[in-house]
Amino acid sequence: MGMMMLVRLNMRVALAALCGGVLLVTLYWGRCGDLTHRPISSVLSNALSERPDEIECVINGEYSVACRRDQDLVYVPFSFIHKYFEIYGKITSTDGVEKFEWSHSYSKVYHPKKKYDPRGTFATFENYNVEVRDRVKCISGIDGVPVSTQWEPKGFFYPTQIAQFGLAHYSKNLTEPEPRVRVLDDGEKSHENWIVSTDAVLTREYDSELKANVLRFATTDRVSSQVWLKVNISQDFVLSIDLMLKLNSSMTVVLQSKEKKETVYLHYVTSMQLIYAQEDHIYYGIGVDQKWRHLTRDLIIDMQKGWALQDRPKRKSPRNKFKISSIILSGRGAAGNVRVSSSAHMAHFFAAARWLVGAQRARGGWPVGARRRLAPAPELRPGWHSAMSQGHAVSLLARAHYRSGDGRYLQAAQRALDLLDVPSHKGGVKAMWMDKYLWYEEYPTKPPLFVLNGFIYTLLGLYDLHVIEGENSISPAKKMFDDGMVSLKALLPLFDTGSGSFYDLRHFTLGVSPNIARWDYHATHVNQLYLLSSLDPDPILINTAKRWEGYMKGKRAAHN
Amino acid sequence: MGMMMLVRLNMRVALAALCGGVLLVTLYWGRCGDLTHRPISSVLSNALSERPDEIECVINGEYSVACRRDQDLVYVPFSFIHKYFEIYGKITSTDGVEKFEWSHSYSKVYHPKKKYDPRGTFATFENYNVEVRDRVKCISGIDGVPVSTQWEPKGFFYPTQIAQFGLAHYSKNLTEPEPRVRVLDDGEKSHENWIVSTDAVLTREYDSELKANVLRFATTDRVSSQVWLKVNISQDFVLSIDLMLKLNSSMTVVLQSKEKKETVYLHYVTSMQLIYAQEDHIYYGIGVDQKWRHLTRDLIIDMQKGWALQDRPKRKSPRNKFKISSIILSGRGAAGNVRVSSSAHMAHFFAAARWLVGAQRARGGWPVGARRRLAPAPELRPGWHSAMSQGHAVSLLARAHYRSGDGRYLQAAQRALDLLDVPSHKGGVKAMWMDKYLWYEEYPTKPPLFVLNGFIYTLLGLYDLHVIEGENSISPAKKMFDDGMVSLKALLPLFDTGSGSFYDLRHFTLGVSPNIARWDYHATHVNQLYLLSSLDPDPILINTAKRWEGYMKGKRAAHN
Repeated sequence: MGMMMLVRLNMRVALAALCGGVLLVTLYWGRCGDLTHRPISSVLSNALSERPDEIECVINGEYSVACRRDQDLVYVPFSFIHKYFEIYGKITSTDGVEKFEWSHSYSKVYHPKKKYDPRGTFATFENYNVEVRDRVKCISGIDGVPVSTQWEPKGFFYPTQIAQFGLAHYSKNLTEPEPRVRVLDDGEKSHENWIVSTDAVLTREYDSELKANVLRFATTDRVSSQVWLKVNISQDFVLSIDLMLKLNSSMTVVLQSKEKKETVYLHYVTSMQLIYAQEDHIYYGIGVDQKWRHLTRDLIIDMQKGWALQDRPKRKSPRNKFKISSIILSGRGAAGNVRVSSSAHMAHFFAAARWLVGAQRARGGWPVGARRRLAPAPELRPGWHSAMSQGHAVSLLARAHYRSGDGRYLQAAQRALDLLDVPSHKGGVKAMWMDKYLWYEEYPTKPPLFVLNGFIYTLLGLYDLHVIEGENSISPAKKMFDDGMVSLKALLPLFDTGSGSFYDLRHFTLGVSPNIARWDYHATHVNQLYLLSSLDPDPILINTAKRWEGYMKGKRAAHN
Repeated sequence: MGMMMLVRLNMRVALAALCGGVLLVTLYWGRCGDLTHRPISSVLSNALSERPDEIECVINGEYSVACRRDQDLVYVPFSFIHKYFEIYGKITSTDGVEKFEWSHSYSKVYHPKKKYDPRGTFATFENYNVEVRDRVKCISGIDGVPVSTQWEPKGFFYPTQIAQFGLAHYSKNLTEPEPRVRVLDDGEKSHENWIVSTDAVLTREYDSELKANVLRFATTDRVSSQVWLKVNISQDFVLSIDLMLKLNSSMTVVLQSKEKKETVYLHYVTSMQLIYAQEDHIYYGIGVDQKWRHLTRDLIIDMQKGWALQDRPKRKSPRNKFKISSIILSGRGAAGNVRVSSSAHMAHFFAAARWLVGAQRARGGWPVGARRRLAPAPELRPGWHSAMSQGHAVSLLARAHYRSGDGRYLQAAQRALDLLDVPSHKGGVKAMWMDKYLWYEEYPTKPPLFVLNGFIYTLLGLYDLHVIEGENSISPAKKMFDDGMVSLKALLPLFDTGSGSFYDLRHFTLGVSPNIARWDYHATHVNQLYLLSSLDPDPILINTAKRWEGYMKGKRAAHN
């Protein structure tokens, strides 16, 4: 230690740096030298030559960025790196030690532990949560499947999304622990004490159709006339119930926040309207047929979609903040088998399977009712088919048949293949590469786009059906899969950018700038290739998967 | 200013950082805080929270790099950026102000100012200096063209290199100022005083073949028996001379360094040996025919190649450090028209043209005598043809015909087209893409590689010949060019990586990792596309050129 003088360098307004189109004026302070017993001149020179200092970085002769220097070492601000290279980074803290974590990609690759099995999880879909996506408007009260707003704000049934919803639930059912199930009222052992207002009626009786005891109820038109059950259920929010409602009847589930005394009313009403919401009242139409229906509702999802409809901000962890406080029956009808569980994956899965069987058209397809704009390619007009929808549907229907033994699922899957062999210009989904390699088109534009991930998902559908059909295979799934794999192995290299992958081949078919796959699609490609490499030993699959995974950590193909 | 205490933070051995495969142990010194009258604790906390400090950057969870931080701002060392992204940078100083210049690419694009003209410069070759390249062993004393060591250390005539040598000189002749020419002895107006030793003879006489006065000389076998001319020529080093030597005769040019008294002897001897060098004596065989020959030698190149043969280090700017001090004639022979000039581009150009006419084989090709290894593709065995050689030769021969009117050049160019229509497996250079698009192969491997730059150079040859042939066109050059342009426009997008270009399409034809073009080849692609866009208005050419030029400044194609 010693005595010394303070030297303060002048404050400098360093650089007006134009970076990524944004004008940044960066203010830097000069800093005091590493002072010892030396004359001022030496101190100053030391300060200028040995301290971290500022230096203007001129980027490709085009604009400047304020960098730091320490003698010959130059340090570049990460904020610039982030914009220039799209690298991600953040400061993290572990046990008080701060580090900066640099991530080339924001996405994740899953290495399959065993050979892909069409009876098992679908791809990596156990990690998907389709219904929480913003582009899912809500889960239909009538069909129990998601309604998409992806290309049409009023909402439409998008078979790809519906199948993904079903396949995600099928996969979660295999990977997640058994759900907690709480029987509220099954008419047998579990009887809850329903509260019946004076002008209402509640009876328990045997129903010959359900072959079970049910609750039959009737209320008057007065609002206070109700049959209701007070509950206090936290944590688990999937309600399932057998319900038969006469016209102008409803079931309302009341959710309450644990802390703030907020109350939300989920009304399931006899209506064909998909969803309607006003303040804390959210309405789902469950149809007008006066027959038994089985409802399985994720109440938190139903609440969140009602909020989203009113553009209310998303809440974090609503499952921890709310509880179910009551179930109210109004009008006339019957109910039975009332349960609340932590999940009901197979119910959601079979809702999707039933929708697919019901919605399949004569050509075996599920036409998409929304217009799909794919500029610079010509748009797809409502009624288009997607090979990915067909393939996902086949994957789902094959599993539904495997789990249920129901032949209708298998037949629907087999019929779904027909359109894969119909060219795009005839309403199908088949494109040809240079008249030689067939491609199942996720978006059957003319000229074709050759989307990679949708094609591979279609191949998985074919593989699934082939395996589930087994010895009694009557469909062309095997041949179609094999033909597709020939195409995939031939054209896969064209999707390699040397540092990532292309989403499609529009640059070739349309002569436009290439469409690079963002990291989550790139990760999907890698996951798909790892999966296929468990089915086919051709080294191009595993080699490409490994090389492409390397790209996600900044590796690149060699240059000459 | 005020009094204060010095606080020195502990020295820290910061990070053992594994970077680019190399273990770096980086030593950092803590630095003194920005001290004022505050208690130590506050000073310390200030030092830790407000100073540029160190922070460990964890790169993709794989290894660490020592970064700096200033509160929430993180600064990454450029040395790491350089390795990770292959970005180039250096500190430059202008008027005492130091800046750091960041370069995405090290290569340069030339924007053509006018439409490409086959009578004018070839591509951007006025910037080429073929003979100084390391892979040029020397300029043949017999043929006046370069000998390549690119794939064969003992040296071979590589038609592509010879044509590039000629085309570069043709282009320089158009873009450079007229050369300075100094006539040393033309037998007429300029007479130098040759020094003749007592046992030697020098006479001036008229030569009926050259139709000029020449020097006839004879010396004895004694070393001291010489005819020599003392000169003192700096700056210009291209010697041209008409020379006729009997066996065991020679011309020696003596070069001397201006400062260091270094002396180098360039011996041009009657021998078939290409080059031989021992210490300061460098020998070039000029053949054994006892007839007139015209030599044009860049003496500095001849000296440097002699040094390179002895693995001597390269010198910087030898043209500024040496002078020509004498020219010595030994043995028996005659000489005339002795000149020294700053350049003799057209002499070099026509040397290449003559070589091409003389070396062309029956099939119209210039087979390459060296084995070409192109792993992972099968190697090309000696005798292979290159579409790029053929195309470059055509470009050169068309210009030679245009400049000389000599029909032999035109015929050689026309015959050179034949092999472009012969498939690679039949010894030609034509490949087909998916049985649909033809490609002229720079390296006609099986399977094909589809090298881009060589293909475009071949197209230029076809265009050149078509234009030079003009109205009297008899060759298929036009149709071959048009067919090639169809292929180019169709396949060009496949060379687009979204951030650069591929050198070839080996990833497609061999199923291997793609071969990215390094920046100088990428710049060649861009230059070629700008050139072609002056000939063909199809927007894909100019759009691709612009997009690819953007990649050289860090722009990328969009991702979805």
